[in-house]
Order: sequence, then C-alpha cells, then structure tokens
Amino acid sequence: MNNYRNIFNTIGRILRVESILMLIPLIVGVIYKEAFTSTLLAFSVTALSSFIIGTLLNIKKAKSHRILPRESFIIVTLAWILMSLVGCIPLIISGYVPNFFDAFFEMCSGFTTTGATILTDVEAMPHSILFWRSFSHWIGGMGVIVFILAILPDNKEGSNMHILRAESPGPQVGKLTSKISVTARILYLIYVALTVIEFLFLFLGPDSKMDLFSSITLTLGTAGTGGFGVLNDGIASYAPYSQYVIAIFMLLFGINFSLFYMILIGKIKGVFKNEELRLYLSIVVISVAIITVSLTMNNIYGTFEERFRHSLFQVASIISTTGYATTDYTIATPWTTICFMVIIFLMLTGPCAGSTGGGIKLSRISILFKSAIRKIKQMISPRKIEPLRDSGAVIEEDVVQGAESFFVLYMIILFVCTFLISFDGKDLVTNFTASLSCISNIGPGLGNVVGPAGNFSEFSSFSKFILSITMITGRLELFPMLALFNYKTWKTR
Amino acid sequence: MNNYRNIFNTIGRILRVESILMLIPLIVGVIYKEAFTSTLLAFSVTALSSFIIGTLLNIKKAKSHRILPRESFIIVTLAWILMSLVGCIPLIISGYVPNFFDAFFEMCSGFTTTGATILTDVEAMPHSILFWRSFSHWIGGMGVIVFILAILPDNKEGSNMHILRAESPGPQVGKLTSKISVTARILYLIYVALTVIEFLFLFLGPDSKMDLFSSITLTLGTAGTGGFGVLNDGIASYAPYSQYVIAIFMLLFGINFSLFYMILIGKIKGVFKNEELRLYLSIVVISVAIITVSLTMNNIYGTFEERFRHSLFQVASIISTTGYATTDYTIATPWTTICFMVIIFLMLTGPCAGSTGGGIKLSRISILFKSAIRKIKQMISPRKIEPLRDSGAVIEEDVVQGAESFFVLYMIILFVCTFLISFDGKDLVTNFTASLSCISNIGPGLGNVVGPAGNFSEFSSFSKFILSITMITGRLELFPMLALFNYKTWKTR
Repeated sequence: MNNYRNIFNTIGRILRVESILMLIPLIVGVIYKEAFTSTLLAFSVTALSSFIIGTLLNIKKAKSHRILPRESFIIVTLAWILMSLVGCIPLIISGYVPNFFDAFFEMCSGFTTTGATILTDVEAMPHSILFWRSFSHWIGGMGVIVFILAILPDNKEGSNMHILRAESPGPQVGKLTSKISVTARILYLIYVALTVIEFLFLFLGPDSKMDLFSSITLTLGTAGTGGFGVLNDGIASYAPYSQYVIAIFMLLFGINFSLFYMILIGKIKGVFKNEELRLYLSIVVISVAIITVSLTMNNIYGTFEERFRHSLFQVASIISTTGYATTDYTIATPWTTICFMVIIFLMLTGPCAGSTGGGIKLSRISILFKSAIRKIKQMISPRKIEPLRDSGAVIEEDVVQGAESFFVLYMIILFVCTFLISFDGKDLVTNFTASLSCISNIGPGLGNVVGPAGNFSEFSSFSKFILSITMITGRLELFPMLALFNYKTWKTR
Repeated sequence: MNNYRNIFNTIGRILRVESILMLIPLIVGVIYKEAFTSTLLAFSVTALSSFIIGTLLNIKKAKSHRILPRESFIIVTLAWILMSLVGCIPLIISGYVPNFFDAFFEMCSGFTTTGATILTDVEAMPHSILFWRSFSHWIGGMGVIVFILAILPDNKEGSNMHILRAESPGPQVGKLTSKISVTARILYLIYVALTVIEFLFLFLGPDSKMDLFSSITLTLGTAGTGGFGVLNDGIASYAPYSQYVIAIFMLLFGINFSLFYMILIGKIKGVFKNEELRLYLSIVVISVAIITVSLTMNNIYGTFEERFRHSLFQVASIISTTGYATTDYTIATPWTTICFMVIIFLMLTGPCAGSTGGGIKLSRISILFKSAIRKIKQMISPRKIEPLRDSGAVIEEDVVQGAESFFVLYMIILFVCTFLISFDGKDLVTNFTASLSCISNIGPGLGNVVGPAGNFSEFSSFSKFILSITMITGRLELFPMLALFNYKTWKTR
C-alpha cells in the first residue's frame, strides 16, 4: 500500500458528492411540506456533516495520483460501503427506519440497484425518503465511480481507468472514446436521455394513478434496474399502459449502453450483429412464451392479454434485475413450477454486460457455454484448440478464465450466503432465492417470505448484514470485495 | 467413425459378461425357492438371450484394435445404457416391476450406484431381484469397464487405456502400474478385500436383525456406494453396531483406492500427505460437528449418542454418495435448515476422486477453489501467474480448465434436469434435490417426495427417463455422454 492519502482523497470526494446529492430529497421534503424535525433535519444534518468530513479528507492532497489495481479495489469497495453507510443515516435519525441494520440494508439495496426492502409499509414513508431510495437506484445504476468521473474529471486519466475497471470488471466494457471522462459523459447522456423519455411516457400517459411523484420515482427505479416502488402492491395497481411502458424500459436498460452509442453514431449494423443482444432478446421471447403457455394451460388469470402482460413484465423485470412486479406470483396467484424455473434461470443469467443491471451477465454465460463445448470437442479430437469468438472477434483466453473463475466464485458466495442466512431457520427456497436475488441485485426472491409481495424484514440483523454485503459484492462483480479479504491487498511494498 | 465392428465386439463382450453375472441372482432365487415361472425364468431367459446376442456380435472380429478417444466415449456410454437395459428385463418379465421406465430407472440407479428407487415396498420383492439390485451397485462401483478389463484382459493395452480414461476422466486417476490390466486387477483385489471385511463385520456382529442376506446386500450396496436396501425403513431398524460399521465403510469406500494401494506397498507417509484425503476427513468432521450441535440445540432425538450416530451416518452416506439413511430427517424427524444446507453441500462436493463414489469430487472442488483464489491474486498484482499445486505436485493448466468446464457443465445439466422434471409440477426443493441426487449418484434428496423415506415412483415416465439418463451422465463424469450429442463424434473420417 503506497498511497493511503490517495484513497482518503477519493473517499472525501465521494462524501462531498453524496452530500450534494442529498439536497435533492431535502428539496422534495420541502415541496411536500414534511415536518422539519424529522426528515428535513435528518437530511440537512447528514449532508452537512458528510460535506465537512469529505472536505477534511481532502486537505492533505496526495503527492502522486498513481493508483495501483489493488488500491482501486479498496477505493471502489469502500466507496460503495460508505455511500450506503452515509445514505442510511437520514433514515435512522428521522426515526422512520430506527434500526441500523435495516437502514443499511435498505440503502445497500438502493445503491446496488437491488430493490429488496425491509419496509413492511412503503406507503407510510414520507416523500423525501421514498425519493432518496429511488434516487439511490439511479445513482448506483451507472456506477458510483462513473458518476464521479462524469461530473469531476479533474483526476489523471490513467488512475481513473483502473478505478473504472475495478468497479465494472466484466468482459466487453470497452472504451468508446480515447478519453475516459468523455466516455463516462457519453454514457451518462444516454442514461439521462433514456430516463427523461421514460418519465415522459409515464407522466403523459393515460394512467390516472401515475402522478408526478410515481412517474419520477418509478423511472429512477427502472433506469437503475433497481426496483423500489412507492406503493405496497408494487406496480400491480397501475394501468396496463404504464406496466407495458415500464416493461419495455426495463428491457432497454438491460442492454449494453455502448450499443445505444453505436446507434447514435450510425453503426446500426453492428448492433444487430451483436451476439449478446440477440441472446438477450431470444431468452426474453422464449421465457415469455413458456410462461404465457404455462399460465394459459393452467388457466391462471382471466384473459390472454393479462397472461401475456404479467409474463412479459416479470420476465423483463427479472432478466434486467430490476425486481418490480405486477402480480404476486408466489402466493396470491401462484404460478407453476416451470414458471419458477424460468424465473430462477433469468435470475442466474442476468442482462447484457455494460447495462445498468446486475447478475452474471449474458456475455459471461455465453463464454462459459462456449468454453465447455470447446472442451467436449477437444476431448473428441484432442489436437484441435480453437480460440473462442464473440460476434466474430476472438475472446482472449484470459477473459475465458476470468469468466470461469467468476462463475465458481459466484456459486461459492451464493452458497455461503445461503448457508449463513439459514441460521434464521427459514426454508431452503426462501434462503436460496433471497441470496440469489441479492448477489444478482434483483430484489424479490421466491417463497412465502421474500416473494414479490414479501419483504426482507423477517430476517435477523445478522442475515440482513450478510445480505447487504452480498449485494455490494455482486454489484462490484465479486473481485473488488474478495480482494479486500486477501492479505496481499493490504501489504506495504 | 473408422471402426464400428470394434464397438460391436466390445458391446458383445459386455453382454456376455452381464449374462454370466445374472447367474448369481438366479442361484439366489433357487436357494430361496422362488417360483420358477416368475423370477427364475425371467433371469434365465434374459441371461441366455443376452449371451447369444453377445456371441453374435463377436462373430465378425474387428481388423484393428485401435480405438480413438471419440469411439471410447461411444463404447462407454453405450455399455452403461446397455447394462441397464438388459439388467432391467428380468424385473419387467417377472412382473415385479412391469413398467419399462420404472425398471430402467431402477437398474440405471443400480449400475450407476445411485440407489434411488421407484419401489414403494422393497420388502415385497423376491430375494433374487433384491440381490440383483444390490449386486448391480457392486458391479457399477468400480466401473463396468474396469470390471471387463480385470476379468478379460485379452485386448491391446493402448485401446483399453482410452476406454478406461473415457469411463473415469477425473483428475488424478493415475496408473498404479505400467500395465493397465494389472492396475485393474489390483484395484479389484482391494475392492474385494474391503467388501469381504465389511461383510464379516456385519454378519459376525451382535446385530440379530443382520442376517446373511442383509449382510451381503448391504455390503454390496456400501462397497459400490450405491444405497439400495432390503427393508422399507432403510438402515433405521438395524442395531447401532451395524450402523456404525456401515458408516465407517461408506467413508472408506469414498477414499481414493490408490491410497489403499500405497498403504499396501508401505508408502504410508504419502497417504497422510494427500491433500484430498485431508480435505475429505476435515469436511466429515466439521459436518458431523455442525449437525450434532444443531440437533442438540434443537433437542432432536433423545440422547447425544443418537444425535452423533445419525449425523455421522448421514454425513458418511451423503459425502460418499451412498444414500443409506438411519432416520427420515426430512419428515418424521425433521432436521434444521442448517443441517439441510450441510447435506446439500456434501451432495455438491462428493468424495475423493478414484473412489467408488459419484459427484463432482473433492479434487475438482479443490482445483476450482485454488484457481479462483489465484485469479483474485492475479487481479491484485497482475504480473504474477503461479501454477497450482496439489499435495506438492504441479497441476497442469489443462486439468484446471477441465475442472472448470466440468463444473460449468455439471451446473448446466443439473439445471436442465431440474427444469425438465419440473413439468410434473412438484416443488422446487424436490426437483432440485432429486436432480442433484441423480447427477451425483447419491440416492435420496430432500423434501416430501424424494427424502430418505420417500421414493421416485411419483414422477412421470418422462421424468424417470430424464433422471435415468442424468444418473449415467453423472456416473461417467459428463463428457462421454455429452460427446454423443456432438456431431463430430459420429463423423466418418
């Protein structure tokens, strides 16, 4: 560890950014005339102290801006933990979520765009807190670091690249332009543009239930593929029009953002040739078809339109790792086991790399599959070893190995998380799907407790903490968090 | 495909061997004075026709004995399917298991040493059939091909090595001696010796319930890590003495057989240095401890001895992939969720490579773990790439990649099997643990249907067939079966 000051500086900057972001829920609270003594004071005090600490951490500037890969792991992981820690303070001191582990879980779930909640009555929350939850999805959706880079491009290019890589080390997240801060800004512009378009579709649509506040918060939740809503029944009571709009935008936010950039610069052919996108769309079509047929065969819901809408919405929600629901498919209107298997499949694959979604990502799934097929072929005719290809381009063996290690670690963490929360004594399906939902940043699981109409309040504080850390681990694509547990990361050179 | 005749010859030899093996249950039937028109006739007719077909397939001898790797995949997979197909005929024509899919499932379960049954009343079966089921475990335990090699070493050495590799392509199954038929015979001698010792311990022990027939069948079932019993309540009603003996022998049969050979030739130091063995014993000790503590804390069973015995027995049974049970831990005496997680963990790891057990195998688990840790280290300091080591020796990168591909394929097949049997509409835990139990050749799963006191009779014929194929796929360590689905395997040069 050669440069603790660099780490302090970066964390200080993150704190200052978060304090400024907190002014927005504060304004929301003022608009909705909330009591000064609870939420308004809570957000003010947190924002102010966060700004002061952030400034103090930046008094002594680091001499060198050079950041090593292992330092970038520390910075990124600490940044996400800190964002959630600071972000949950208003919830605690306002008295609305008095328990620390509850509040920390809620904000981890927010920033990691998971959308799992410990709230049993969302509608009882003040507007400022509901907005802050949804806004945290939007901030976390593109990555905290991308956000910092987009708005504060005063750091040296080289160091930022390391941090950016550490935050999103998935395959195929290439640089779009030569300057990283320019890339970050282009991505953010696309993000903002899509967000505004969705908001307009929702707010200006024919749904009387979709007021200004609902439109804003649900759009933020969709854009970040988060999943926090503002009503107790999720998206169920909004009009079918709104449900279709949200479903389509969930699918859009699950696509690699560089494809939108390619459309903007006119390279539309390349978009259609993209293997991951084609896989993504095929999985969506097949999954919707299987669920719709299964619902029809078992006569669940009244009309075909309902069956199709609920299946499209849930498939879009799970594969994009958003987690909204228009129906309680585990309890109130139980779907068939085949439908659950489709949902678990979607929970495991996740959306495209380079989207705002979580999970293993389709590009990795595709690499794993191709690599396994190659191994079978190699056994049949031992001499031939061909490189793997994605959309025509050769995949480096290093990336293949990375995907395989990722998969193994993902399964290990998924198992360990399931094991640790099993001490609460809940059933296997609940524990497994809760863990899967958290590591893949989805939101709901299956079973009685954590289904789409349920929540995570029944878990113990210990389990909530484990699930919170699992969410951050998943969001950072495992390696940064795991690196913290390796002594080499902390070794002084 | 250059040599179909070679494949026919080998299959013919397998048929003849099986016909001779069938004489033993026939003798058992005679001893127990079974009706000639049912079982005795069934075994006689099957054995005779099998011998004739086997001989016909060997009339035209292949010109060249050279067998390509891809041909060995075909031979091995066909051999196992054929053994089960022929083996299930007596069950069908005797009328005791009239349905083909039931009988095929039962014998696949037998030869693959799974031990999952579709019988709802084991005690209603005649002795000859019960013996045949248990005997199939013993034959399958060491591998059908090893068996053929041990008794019929008339083939060329090189070809046999390919076939042997195809049957058990796990890491670390090295040759003990330079001649492969000698190795096969040494392994078989160890196998026979351990079997005889267990039989003596059971038969001569103080357990009045453990008569000659029970001692023989249960010993055969333990040795092959199979799991078929002769009583409806499994091992529950035998005396604690017998339960301890079986538990210890299940653990022994889960150890790499080359370690027994090393003990025989006096290299005891090497045995204690073996990493896989130490991992195996550590997992057993920790698992027994966790379950015993959990049972004690929840006051399940009357005495500490009972808790320890049941937990030792079940841990030994699952990790060795045998599948015997002394207690119905899912329904009659439900264990805690933590205990179930330990059981699922053991179902996933399996025993040592080179044992008679199934599953992923600990050597692979250990490679996967080490490779993932190496990837994390590589990300921290990108330049260093060290080879992985096992018990001090370097593991080839090819083996590492093989283990990773194996893991990915294992998970894919596990998922596909679970998905396909979900059409029956059973719950997720039942479907998942039934599939896991079959791919790892264990026997029981968890949940109401396939728990240790349950059976697989409730599944549809389609599901039974899928599970049967999954058992063979798992037993052959995936690649041979998967190779059959690749067109390259069947291509003429």
